[in-house]
Amino acid sequence: MIQSVQRAAQILGVLGSGTPRLGVTEIADRVGLAKPTVHGLLRTLEAHELVAQDPDTGKYSLGPGVLQLGNAYLDGSELRARSLRWAESLAQRAGEAVWVATLSGSRVIVLHHVFRPDNTVQILEVGAAIPWHACALGRAIVAFLSEGQRDRALAGELVQLTGQTKTTRAALSPVLDQARRQGYAVEDQEATVGDAGIAAPIVAREGTVAGAIGVVGAADRLLADENRDDLVRLVTEAARAVSRDLGAGRGGVVLSALG
Amino acid sequence: MIQSVQRAAQILGVLGSGTPRLGVTEIADRVGLAKPTVHGLLRTLEAHELVAQDPDTGKYSLGPGVLQLGNAYLDGSELRARSLRWAESLAQRAGEAVWVATLSGSRVIVLHHVFRPDNTVQILEVGAAIPWHACALGRAIVAFLSEGQRDRALAGELVQLTGQTKTTRAALSPVLDQARRQGYAVEDQEATVGDAGIAAPIVAREGTVAGAIGVVGAADRLLADENRDDLVRLVTEAARAVSRDLGAGRGGVVLSALG
Repeated sequence: MIQSVQRAAQILGVLGSGTPRLGVTEIADRVGLAKPTVHGLLRTLEAHELVAQDPDTGKYSLGPGVLQLGNAYLDGSELRARSLRWAESLAQRAGEAVWVATLSGSRVIVLHHVFRPDNTVQILEVGAAIPWHACALGRAIVAFLSEGQRDRALAGELVQLTGQTKTTRAALSPVLDQARRQGYAVEDQEATVGDAGIAAPIVAREGTVAGAIGVVGAADRLLADENRDDLVRLVTEAARAVSRDLGAGRGGVVLSALG
Repeated sequence: MIQSVQRAAQILGVLGSGTPRLGVTEIADRVGLAKPTVHGLLRTLEAHELVAQDPDTGKYSLGPGVLQLGNAYLDGSELRARSLRWAESLAQRAGEAVWVATLSGSRVIVLHHVFRPDNTVQILEVGAAIPWHACALGRAIVAFLSEGQRDRALAGELVQLTGQTKTTRAALSPVLDQARRQGYAVEDQEATVGDAGIAAPIVAREGTVAGAIGVVGAADRLLADENRDDLVRLVTEAARAVSRDLGAGRGGVVLSALG
């Protein structure tokens, strides 16, 4: 590990988590470093446009360079590329918004979002980060990790997002067991009041989980008796299709994990 | 400047520019460093999920952390926040796709994209980076920079993207002069064959240029005699509205630059 790079990454993390503009002193406090050290790191990051300084206030924020990198990440993501058409067809068939996500630390990151096919105004959620335990996408991924990885995920911080969020190992373990048995995960108003999700894992070569695909929308619609089974079928079919495409590029591995 | 952070930023730049997956040797070649040095930097970046290693091939790519940062940058962008509703109304009134962009080095980065209000399939271009000299957005920004900044922009590399791209100071200087005089910039098939753009600068407090807003679409439609003047009027009105909103938050600076 290279200490100054670690510190630079920490500064980016601080600027990327909620408070978009911070002074040098505030940043120094949050990362626990001396002001001159932070100043040198900021100047270097600024030269690469990873941070920017406001000419009026002197405060720092993330720079446009990180947006370019984020875009390059999406462009290079095989998971995203392989899921585009399946996500589109899932949204059409299900009549719901579709998200494709991958796990990053304790959160899933939305890589692709197809709007619900109606004419309502919807906000694009690509790049959004959601605690894994509070959404169907995260549960679908973590359920199919190795036992050791699953244990580490359950040992992390499990924040409360709504009154419904399950935040203990005791509550989440059976949820993950069930997801593994059934091949899909469900979440009911644990990330956002009123919204639910149904998601299934996308499996790459040799059975490793690359991410998940699922529908997200009003809980009373998604989980209604007359819709739920159809949505589960459509979501798991889409997940299998993306998995096949991901594996097919490398010789067509059999998808035993998804049955 | 902190050398190891500079090197880490260079590695991110290499992974973010066209070849999404590279081995350590390839990265070392491109940044001109020894393999062990690059390996240490990659390990540190990987710990922060700014890069990821493919378990099969051992090659490196950008990690999901950069997507999170890019999303945080967008969330924190005052320019983007202030332009959302004006961009939407410009798209409706103009019947064309609208882009809002800011300058980053020699490129403009698209911060917001409203699709052309028809039912065609369109690709979201948020995060896309376009050489400033080849698009109306970039010209609208650079035209209103200080003379010194404008000179530096013209002294940079001016790549040829289509047969029409102006790539010399002699060809671009009069274009910028005209944009400054008129308060808007036009581009005709210099970035993409068949497409044109009309854009105007967004001016923040004290007359500094924060970015640009403009319409992008088929050249034969945008630049047709019966459309062009209307589009220019709508684009400049939208730019003034965003500028007022940006300045208004800080005491309502008069927008002399936009007349």
